[in-house]
Amino acid sequence: MKMETLQDLFLDVIKDTYDAEQQITKALPKMVKAANNPDLKAGFDEHLTQTENHVKRLEQVFEALGEKPARKTCKGMKGLLEEGSELIKEDAEPDVLDAGLIAAAQKVEHYEISAYGTLIAYANSLGNQDVIDLFQQTLDEEKATDQKLTELAEGEVNVQAA
Amino acid sequence: MKMETLQDLFLDVIKDTYDAEQQITKALPKMVKAANNPDLKAGFDEHLTQTENHVKRLEQVFEALGEKPARKTCKGMKGLLEEGSELIKEDAEPDVLDAGLIAAAQKVEHYEISAYGTLIAYANSLGNQDVIDLFQQTLDEEKATDQKLTELAEGEVNVQAA
Repeated sequence: MKMETLQDLFLDVIKDTYDAEQQITKALPKMVKAANNPDLKAGFDEHLTQTENHVKRLEQVFEALGEKPARKTCKGMKGLLEEGSELIKEDAEPDVLDAGLIAAAQKVEHYEISAYGTLIAYANSLGNQDVIDLFQQTLDEEKATDQKLTELAEGEVNVQAA
Repeated sequence: MKMETLQDLFLDVIKDTYDAEQQITKALPKMVKAANNPDLKAGFDEHLTQTENHVKRLEQVFEALGEKPARKTCKGMKGLLEEGSELIKEDAEPDVLDAGLIAAAQKVEHYEISAYGTLIAYANSLGNQDVIDLFQQTLDEEKATDQKLTELAEGEVNVQAA
């Protein structure tokens, strides 16, 4: 595809993010299963429900732009999730594994915080005001999840793992 | 390696980040070359100098912990940088390429913001106060770079690409 305008790049980033969110819905059940701390397990489970909703919001974005939903393999997310899978396979003590799972999940959150920040900036420059709200809702949830993970790590999990 | 304590995981994340920073020093010269906007080109060049310094700071961390510097392949950063390389190879208009390069660079920045945030949290839990300053200096620079990229995108590059 030739990228002639910001609109082309905007669509490309939406497809990348749509793929990333779907990769996350496949990875989260493994993280729920691997987590030991009950709050962490519940947190990952809650974020799975949110992520399924992020996928739906992106489908609403495609529709608003008059485009069919399409995925573009997100290599960044693939690499980030591989790091999490490798950790699960390591011979780690339960508390240490939980601390590592939180770190891996926060890298995923930061990918998305960056992606949705970019999408909002593009939509602003392109005058696509109608989709900004959809991106903003997801961005707020990603930031809240990141914050919750920090609190769980610093207040509980890291202390037990130390 | 068996991960029995947070100290083991701490060292693992330091090695991952040490590898990530070195991958970035290899990628940035290609981004300097590909960027069209002079401020973006200069910004990437300045960040290369900073990144070389981040590598040195991590070597000081290894020394402070009585460990030899060692790398662990950071698959997350590999995936993120591949996205940037693919973009450079696309048939994109100069302003659109610049907008995409900024988005790719901000994903890299967010990986590092997350990594150094984790390292500071671990060092705090482990009582390694002496290395926190080194992590904090780098974290501050990554956040400042991310902020500068946002300003350049929103104030100039995205507008021209739209």
